Amino acid sequence: MQRIVLHVEYDGTNYCGWQTQKNGVSIQQKLEEAILRRTGESVQVYSSGRTDAGVHALSQVVHFDTQSKIPPERFSLALNTALPEDIRIKQSFLAPKEDFHARYCAKGKHYRYIIKNSPHAGAIDRLYTMWVPTPLDVSAMQLAAKHMEGTHDFSAFCAQGTDIKSKVRTVHRVEVQKQEDRITVDVFGNGFLYNMVRIMVGTLIAVGLHKKKPDDVAEIIEKKERVNAGLTAQPQGLFLVEVFYE
Amino acid sequence: MQRIVLHVEYDGTNYCGWQTQKNGVSIQQKLEEAILRRTGESVQVYSSGRTDAGVHALSQVVHFDTQSKIPPERFSLALNTALPEDIRIKQSFLAPKEDFHARYCAKGKHYRYIIKNSPHAGAIDRLYTMWVPTPLDVSAMQLAAKHMEGTHDFSAFCAQGTDIKSKVRTVHRVEVQKQEDRITVDVFGNGFLYNMVRIMVGTLIAVGLHKKKPDDVAEIIEKKERVNAGLTAQPQGLFLVEVFYE
Repeated sequence: MQRIVLHVEYDGTNYCGWQTQKNGVSIQQKLEEAILRRTGESVQVYSSGRTDAGVHALSQVVHFDTQSKIPPERFSLALNTALPEDIRIKQSFLAPKEDFHARYCAKGKHYRYIIKNSPHAGAIDRLYTMWVPTPLDVSAMQLAAKHMEGTHDFSAFCAQGTDIKSKVRTVHRVEVQKQEDRITVDVFGNGFLYNMVRIMVGTLIAVGLHKKKPDDVAEIIEKKERVNAGLTAQPQGLFLVEVFYE
Repeated sequence: MQRIVLHVEYDGTNYCGWQTQKNGVSIQQKLEEAILRRTGESVQVYSSGRTDAGVHALSQVVHFDTQSKIPPERFSLALNTALPEDIRIKQSFLAPKEDFHARYCAKGKHYRYIIKNSPHAGAIDRLYTMWVPTPLDVSAMQLAAKHMEGTHDFSAFCAQGTDIKSKVRTVHRVEVQKQEDRITVDVFGNGFLYNMVRIMVGTLIAVGLHKKKPDDVAEIIEKKERVNAGLTAQPQGLFLVEVFYE
């Protein structure tokens, strides 16, 4: 038995998200089907965490166990020929330790959100950005982002109905940058609640539109009520860029 | 009667190309349908030139005549609500002169071709790049590109069977740049033959793979035979960036 780790890039447009569900096709299902086709084994694959429908990954980390004798480094090639073109294995290797777990061993993640801030919507990047036609105040968004950094109870930035013990997370860095008509929000943290990045971005957009002030963010965090934060930004602007391990 | 000019961005993935054909849906058809829905008029739209199936445009220039009283600047908004999301009008305005013609008045064009030069194919940019897994020699490609600049008979870089009087064109500039795993080829010229940019890029790729030498390009041009040039690069890496007028 060997435990294989995969780095997976996917375009979330055509999927119901990472996790297999009753309705729709999932990334997880496509990976498990590809492994079945190449090894004859029905395995379960584990990722660093779920992504929602329409959310993309540049490098999702996945592990699974197999009896197959395929060399670990060859799995990328073997699986890519059994996967649709919108799911690609970038790398495959033997797990660094026997009990490596893509989710439980993850120490942090880097998410990126891309806003297209332009009077006209884009045709080409429509599935990879969120379009905001009104000009956003990027300086205000940068000030607001600073308030999100640090260790906080992020209840205000968690989808309602999420049943979880502690909503305390550490956000190491939130960077807001503008280049031409694109505003990129990079978020680095040790863990993320359900919809957390999208609600953070929705709140930054509210600040950029002057519907909220940068300093309001401190109070929003303090009050721990979802209703005070901004809307949940659309899924298609979100990318899981990297997962960090020890 | 007023002559309206449109700047159109489109994702060519789902279309048979610019021009209406028996099989498949074209960009032209979608624009004419949108104008019919908004004005009640069956008009013909004219672009700066055709693009093939899968080829994209950041700013294709189009004109048409209408009796409609819609102010020229409002056409962009009016048509965008009648168009699919992968075709967007960026701007609409009154033609600068009565006999303006999107094709015949064009003085030049800027095309961009994007190569993903990486051991693994991309999932997210698969529809907007051509994947070349073998590392390309960018310096050699840059030398080869220099030979393509200038006024030449570009018969070697024209799809066979193209019936056209003169194949002499002026290519002002061919720039090859690498950033991370992307190689971008920007081509500026006064006019382009059928498949010309894609054959130029296919030839540059052959040079980057050391299947041809940079200096071979001078001889390829000289001999005027399509067979000496490289393969026609895939359509999905090609973007019409801008059309220039006086």
